[in-house]
Amino acid sequence: MIEYRNLRVALLGAGSVGSQTARLLLDHADELALRVGARLELAGIAVRNLDAKRDADLPAELYTTDAAALIDGADIVVELMGGIEPARSYIIQALTSGADVITANKALLAEHGDELFDIADQVGAQLYYEASVAAAIPILRPLRDSLAGDRINRVMGIVNGSTNYILDRMDRFGDSAEDAARVALELGFLEADPTLDVEGYDAAQKVTILANLAFHTSVPVEQVYREGITEVTADQVNAAREAGYAIKLLAIAERLPDPETGVESVSARVYPALISRDHPLATVHEGKNAVFVEAEAAGSLMFYGAGAGGVETASAVLGDVVSAARRHLAGGPGVALKARADLPVVPVGAIETRYQFTLEVSDEPGVLARVASVLATHGVSVETVVQSASVVTNGVRTATLVIGTHSAQESALSATVKKLAALSVVTAVKSVLRIEGIS
Amino acid sequence: MIEYRNLRVALLGAGSVGSQTARLLLDHADELALRVGARLELAGIAVRNLDAKRDADLPAELYTTDAAALIDGADIVVELMGGIEPARSYIIQALTSGADVITANKALLAEHGDELFDIADQVGAQLYYEASVAAAIPILRPLRDSLAGDRINRVMGIVNGSTNYILDRMDRFGDSAEDAARVALELGFLEADPTLDVEGYDAAQKVTILANLAFHTSVPVEQVYREGITEVTADQVNAAREAGYAIKLLAIAERLPDPETGVESVSARVYPALISRDHPLATVHEGKNAVFVEAEAAGSLMFYGAGAGGVETASAVLGDVVSAARRHLAGGPGVALKARADLPVVPVGAIETRYQFTLEVSDEPGVLARVASVLATHGVSVETVVQSASVVTNGVRTATLVIGTHSAQESALSATVKKLAALSVVTAVKSVLRIEGIS
Repeated sequence: MIEYRNLRVALLGAGSVGSQTARLLLDHADELALRVGARLELAGIAVRNLDAKRDADLPAELYTTDAAALIDGADIVVELMGGIEPARSYIIQALTSGADVITANKALLAEHGDELFDIADQVGAQLYYEASVAAAIPILRPLRDSLAGDRINRVMGIVNGSTNYILDRMDRFGDSAEDAARVALELGFLEADPTLDVEGYDAAQKVTILANLAFHTSVPVEQVYREGITEVTADQVNAAREAGYAIKLLAIAERLPDPETGVESVSARVYPALISRDHPLATVHEGKNAVFVEAEAAGSLMFYGAGAGGVETASAVLGDVVSAARRHLAGGPGVALKARADLPVVPVGAIETRYQFTLEVSDEPGVLARVASVLATHGVSVETVVQSASVVTNGVRTATLVIGTHSAQESALSATVKKLAALSVVTAVKSVLRIEGIS
Repeated sequence: MIEYRNLRVALLGAGSVGSQTARLLLDHADELALRVGARLELAGIAVRNLDAKRDADLPAELYTTDAAALIDGADIVVELMGGIEPARSYIIQALTSGADVITANKALLAEHGDELFDIADQVGAQLYYEASVAAAIPILRPLRDSLAGDRINRVMGIVNGSTNYILDRMDRFGDSAEDAARVALELGFLEADPTLDVEGYDAAQKVTILANLAFHTSVPVEQVYREGITEVTADQVNAAREAGYAIKLLAIAERLPDPETGVESVSARVYPALISRDHPLATVHEGKNAVFVEAEAAGSLMFYGAGAGGVETASAVLGDVVSAARRHLAGGPGVALKARADLPVVPVGAIETRYQFTLEVSDEPGVLARVASVLATHGVSVETVVQSASVVTNGVRTATLVIGTHSAQESALSATVKKLAALSVVTAVKSVLRIEGIS
């Protein structure tokens, strides 16, 4: 029997991730001790209300409302409360007291990450946050460590399971957006207030974390261009499927070189986009997440798995706890990531992308010429045009034009769409979507 | 201008991975210095023959034939020569002199990994080897660190790009095995001597490394059950496609619980198997690699990317160099993985799997009953039977029976096939394949 020293682990929060983390810590105590070289003692679980009903069957004496006292005696503090305060203050207390901290709090990192990393750096403590993006999928550690000798050019991910569930149902079962959202809600894939998910806020928070690791650049969440999925229609999804695409809500962080000046910048954005069904991201179904990484030397990589769920997220938290515990025992400064590139962040208008727009046009001679002339004026080059047979609606004979563009500057593309909408021969702009995944 | 200390990096081998690693070290020197906190100085490249023609345009003064002297003055030694000796001796020299070592040498790790890890452990040095499995794909670090708080139950990978290229061509273009191999050879996906790849030796070496990390168990490469792809026919691939499967060469490391005794064991095996086209591994095309991991808490994860290539592999090597350099600066014992589970390794006969066998049978009454009775005798339960319309060949009327079994013990399944082959009504056993990817 080996005698181990104890490392005291304080848990803040007893929601689904918190209680599963506690359960794994207790159930796997012997195995964890072997792997770490010390026993991970669950010192307590800080909660707001001792009398709240809990799913998990954990010893009642673990619960406490005195988070500050619990943190005080801890070697490792695991923050799983969510929200900004008091989570931020507790993490600062933990770091300054010499504890290493694990958090899954993407909102906090997106807003106060710089502050927290600075404090950790000053006191020589570590802040781990693998579970904050794509839950169980190991993506942050590979970006930080495995690709540390490479140059990452682009990170493109499906990082919100709720919206992927909705879009996937619309794609595979032909559901309307409303029906898909109702099923997602019933099955627990969607929160009662779905705004954070369907408006893309959640994905925007995650893309700031990805951009930070990939490009060593702090991107304020307000500078992430963001469109949610609320405008995506069943018609768009069906038309995309027929054209060989899937519509996915993509979180993209990209390094943009300026070939003339040599100055690089970063774009971070979230929007629904068309992606070829041949692309690995197109095969990410239900509530799964995946992150596609393009690096200079490594080429294309993809990381796929569960993007939510209490026990799945707890797995990532525990991985961080083991890393923190090992480094706590080893001592030393750990991995300090002081090297900042802090590239400028550009607005969405400056990026290059491809558009697909669907126009309803009056079926008369010269329409295509007028549309093409608007595109040419804005320097937008056409890759594909499909004109469908004309129909008569309300006494007007109209046709549908689906135009896919070559890569062009976003600002030119959006100006083009505005100009097209104003043409008298264009009776409606039925859909505008970006196309991603083809370089 | 920050003044950095230097860390001397010795490179052993100047093949495609070695020269690309050297090029990245030189090209990215400033960025690497920022990330590491020290300059990574390429001290030299040990080669056998100074006059050999090299692809890479590297400074001639870097080359040396005196590997031992180069290692002597190095902080970090990168072994990319391949083969057992002198690679093994050089690595031992490096570790005992206090250098951290990076290697991509799967054959050496499969045969002498235990010895090398023991030495590293004794002297407090680190041995990194991310590039040894699935090249550019970060898979070993996630297994070791990200999933350190979880329990991995199964690792199933496409870890040999050459054979995947061949099987993928047969599947997608209807090539014969010979044609596919010829194209693979022409395009550089296959070595002039393809034995290591097509007979599954390469995959077997990699599965020992995966099993070691996933189950903390040393699996001698001789104990890996191994079948290559040389028996896979175009007919099998076509029939599989029609039935909704792809045939992939799978490297599988699995934890086997014994519910009665509570004793766990490990199986490691390599064979071509049917995998449902819905499974993420079925969409791994060309020379790509992917590793699918099933863990108790995290659920299913997949890691996908380039499984070969000089620059792609160099990316993984550089990631390890950066980790080694950071830990070299930080001091301390680093991550010592002394906790061994050393589970027993079971022969393939003991595993549970599913078979699909294709029999040519004489078309007469009672055939199905006789076949079914053999299955029942061995306790093998049938999941699917497809009998195709009978044809007359050489004056004999025969039918084709395709039988998919439920999960059963491998030894019972292989005994069943032998018995079936001996039946007078079975004129030929045309195909026997395992079915994987469904639990």
